[in-house]
Amino acid sequence: MYRSHNCGELRETHQQTQVTLSGWVQTIRDKGFVVWADLRDRYGITQLIFDGERSSKEIMEIAKSLGREFVVQVKGTVIERASKNPNIPTGNVEVLVSEIKILNKSLVPPFTIEDRTDGGEDIRMKYRYLDIRRNPVKNNLIFRHKVAIEVRKYLSDHGFIEVETPYLIKSTPEGARDFVVPSRMNEGQFYALPQSPQTFKQLLMVGGMDKYFQIVKCFRDEDLRADRQPEFTQIDCEMAFVEQEDILNVFEGLTRHLLKEIKGVSIDQFPRMTYDEAMKKYGNDKPDIRFGMEFGELNAIAQHKDFGIFNEAELVVGIAIPGGAAYTRKEIDALVDWVRRPQIGAKGMVYARCNEDGSFKSSVDKFYDQEDLAKWAGATGAKAGDLICVLSGNANKTRTQLSALRMEIAQRLGLRKNNEFAPLWVIDFPLLELDEETGHYHAMHHPFTSPKPGQMELLDTDPGAVKANAYDLVLNGNEIGGGSIRIHDKQIQATMFRHLGFSPEEAKAQFGFLMDAFQYGAPPHGGLAFGLDRLVAILGGQETIRDFIAFPKNNSGRDVMIDAPAPIDDLQLKELHLKLDL
Amino acid sequence: MYRSHNCGELRETHQQTQVTLSGWVQTIRDKGFVVWADLRDRYGITQLIFDGERSSKEIMEIAKSLGREFVVQVKGTVIERASKNPNIPTGNVEVLVSEIKILNKSLVPPFTIEDRTDGGEDIRMKYRYLDIRRNPVKNNLIFRHKVAIEVRKYLSDHGFIEVETPYLIKSTPEGARDFVVPSRMNEGQFYALPQSPQTFKQLLMVGGMDKYFQIVKCFRDEDLRADRQPEFTQIDCEMAFVEQEDILNVFEGLTRHLLKEIKGVSIDQFPRMTYDEAMKKYGNDKPDIRFGMEFGELNAIAQHKDFGIFNEAELVVGIAIPGGAAYTRKEIDALVDWVRRPQIGAKGMVYARCNEDGSFKSSVDKFYDQEDLAKWAGATGAKAGDLICVLSGNANKTRTQLSALRMEIAQRLGLRKNNEFAPLWVIDFPLLELDEETGHYHAMHHPFTSPKPGQMELLDTDPGAVKANAYDLVLNGNEIGGGSIRIHDKQIQATMFRHLGFSPEEAKAQFGFLMDAFQYGAPPHGGLAFGLDRLVAILGGQETIRDFIAFPKNNSGRDVMIDAPAPIDDLQLKELHLKLDL
Repeated sequence: MYRSHNCGELRETHQQTQVTLSGWVQTIRDKGFVVWADLRDRYGITQLIFDGERSSKEIMEIAKSLGREFVVQVKGTVIERASKNPNIPTGNVEVLVSEIKILNKSLVPPFTIEDRTDGGEDIRMKYRYLDIRRNPVKNNLIFRHKVAIEVRKYLSDHGFIEVETPYLIKSTPEGARDFVVPSRMNEGQFYALPQSPQTFKQLLMVGGMDKYFQIVKCFRDEDLRADRQPEFTQIDCEMAFVEQEDILNVFEGLTRHLLKEIKGVSIDQFPRMTYDEAMKKYGNDKPDIRFGMEFGELNAIAQHKDFGIFNEAELVVGIAIPGGAAYTRKEIDALVDWVRRPQIGAKGMVYARCNEDGSFKSSVDKFYDQEDLAKWAGATGAKAGDLICVLSGNANKTRTQLSALRMEIAQRLGLRKNNEFAPLWVIDFPLLELDEETGHYHAMHHPFTSPKPGQMELLDTDPGAVKANAYDLVLNGNEIGGGSIRIHDKQIQATMFRHLGFSPEEAKAQFGFLMDAFQYGAPPHGGLAFGLDRLVAILGGQETIRDFIAFPKNNSGRDVMIDAPAPIDDLQLKELHLKLDL
Repeated sequence: MYRSHNCGELRETHQQTQVTLSGWVQTIRDKGFVVWADLRDRYGITQLIFDGERSSKEIMEIAKSLGREFVVQVKGTVIERASKNPNIPTGNVEVLVSEIKILNKSLVPPFTIEDRTDGGEDIRMKYRYLDIRRNPVKNNLIFRHKVAIEVRKYLSDHGFIEVETPYLIKSTPEGARDFVVPSRMNEGQFYALPQSPQTFKQLLMVGGMDKYFQIVKCFRDEDLRADRQPEFTQIDCEMAFVEQEDILNVFEGLTRHLLKEIKGVSIDQFPRMTYDEAMKKYGNDKPDIRFGMEFGELNAIAQHKDFGIFNEAELVVGIAIPGGAAYTRKEIDALVDWVRRPQIGAKGMVYARCNEDGSFKSSVDKFYDQEDLAKWAGATGAKAGDLICVLSGNANKTRTQLSALRMEIAQRLGLRKNNEFAPLWVIDFPLLELDEETGHYHAMHHPFTSPKPGQMELLDTDPGAVKANAYDLVLNGNEIGGGSIRIHDKQIQATMFRHLGFSPEEAKAQFGFLMDAFQYGAPPHGGLAFGLDRLVAILGGQETIRDFIAFPKNNSGRDVMIDAPAPIDDLQLKELHLKLDL
């Protein structure tokens, strides 16, 4: 038996107990006749004491030889600590060591195993097994486990069945790129790793398994933007015999359960907003509603006043920065520079200070009088002391730019509070999205999404206007889940594929099995998938997912710890009927 | 709202309630003025009645147009059934339909959606979504979900953390073939799909996450023997600061919990048997101990009696078939033919009838007298009325042959009872296994398994004799789990790789990260993995795993429903820097 207790367990009530502990040496303080060492395991830290008077010479020698991260087993007696440490639960006691065994030595670790380590991202990833010893990473992984447990508990209690769908499936050119897996037994053919179990969960609905879920890895061979992973985890869900309202209720219930059980936060009813409204008020389909700064559209009040820039703009829109009237000219210039950075792309920014005395001072006083500016304040909700910032131009681009400014300002003002949770349903998404480069429409959610009843006809005349029974769950400005009511009729699915540019042959080759299935009594169905990595990170009060993943990959899709991907040998290639083409 | 109740829910207490049901039409009986239809969903079957006197003409017409597997929604009143059906929970009531809506039509399904279907394996797999509507498959999937829930519950309650390990890892030529995944962003390089998360769980132990588990898909590109799948699911577990005994106790606890919660079977303590004993008594490292027929070795009593075949044999070994003395000569000849089939490979079989009067009649009476045969009976535990069957030859082969005979006979005698559960730990496995073809030793469990203390030295002199702290959990003659105490010392791991034929360079290239990790304070650790597919099948009283997998692949590794694997297009190949080499 390696241990009778763990390192987070001993209290004053254990005094005089003989215990066996095992763990890692966190620190050693050698005062000559007394040596203290902190012994650490997953559960905490316990102080060990080696004492020249009470411990054997041999033990003292071993104690003095210990290094950081050595793995040791000790036996000893729990005694009261002379100088107590109120910061740790075991801080009132220490273990007077009577036996010690070094289970394994350690080289000096390449970074400190502390909450605030001296190791940078790269070295922490290379030695991820050491990084996981640190509380922040370890606690994130335990936190993730707890979230997954609660998700499974809630869904199982509500009659959902977790069904494992296959990982070796078929490649489809729709959406992001697939990772493919050459088949040795089927020459020249490939499996693909699933981007999601979408078609399989729909087939489960056709199969009568009317409440399905799965916590499942998904794969996308994308050029990795920051904080994306080629493999990621979804909470994938689907229900049959439901309407959008049923789905929203169930998954609002799940999210409410998580907020309550994991964070102790009670939220009654989640607000809902249409996609159009979200774009109009926040310039963003995943608005952070923990704070205000809603958009005020100024076209009606700011155009046709001799200010050509506004007059030529499709949209003139502003927000009010709370307390921003106090910004210096230099600070405001910096904001203007910020929105003009290529990443944001605004041409410029008009502003108006709302002075405490009720007067206004704007960068366009030449064109607008006090009365005009008072209207701006009304439209943007600006109060005395605020700064109105106005962007203009192409409607979509301007909204995106102003949304970025809104988020940046909120971040600077500390309005994006980690311990505050503001969920929001965004509903009525467009069915199709115009690809500005190609001029083609593609599915905004995916090609299985059902248009709203009675809107099929619009597909031919005004495809961009067709709305879908598609919805996202947004939490603190992040999309944590999204889904839709699906098509369950073969003809409608065929029409949809046609509108998305599939020839009938392509549709049949890739999704024939699904359309076949729809002929055998497919029930109405719909679902939703949560991104577990992000959900966990946001519930954990953070926005980067990497430290909630045990072994993440870097931005080139590499695992720098195991050094993968890597070349394979020629025999393997030959067996797979492949040649490199470099 | 598509339904107020499900189809398994209504009872006499619901009489006169207005209900809405949705589901599939299971059967229709049209008596002209009355039509009955059974409506089915995941939860059960409810009888609908359409009655010329009480239902509108329009409804009667729709009712008469219904076909099997049509999806319908009905509203109606729960009424008492004239002729009750005691076989289903809803059998006392029916729903008098007042409104009906056909939600989707269905072609005639290619096989009947009944517990005993007329569909063969191939067609059921092609239309798996219809197969899943059948109770046996549906219930298996729900059963699997329940087992997984209980596994997670037990392990979480015992302090285990489920950690997701990566699916895109590195190919290693050890063991079975890897499935590989070409990397687009890293030219000419490949990921591999994990055969198990072995190295990652060991790294988690180095990382201090001392109790880990994961229910996880694993992948092996093997030539598929019957009832193997290229992707399969493991309950993967690992613990640090443990000895073999700790691990056996925890996972015996888990298995006991499953037997109790899932099957209502209480088993106190699981018996244990060494590998050597299992081979000697059952000729098999996963003996089915639900029944006896233990091996009796006869070398000492049957050799040197002028019977050359036995005298030349390395091993003479027999079993006693209960009641087998009554077999006719023809039946016994059939048994002899059975063991001589190429799949079994015995040269012949000697037998002795144990007559009810205490006398013996053998096929080798020329060489053995009654006293000799009485000794055979003693060694094999044969009683009056039994038949002693004796095989001889090379020890390993003969054991395997006799084990096959033992299992076959038990099957024929109905001794392998589905509702009886006989778990068994087989311990002290050899560390290495001789590959008879190549003459090389390879790791019996895997190259990370620790030899028993003090046996490292034997590696050079008698590698086959080295025992490992490796163990299997056997249930009803199937290996449901296996594991070992691992090496946690870099030098020992390096020695092991050397003995397995890795050059130091190969070892470093493939497992350098693990050996590096061992230098930074690796704790003693070990673990175990259960095969979930088989565990679930055996708990479910079956031995084939396929019907406990929602979307299995066939023996060529194909998913015949979605028709995968499949060719990919040239652009995809080009992006992956690959050419076909057919």
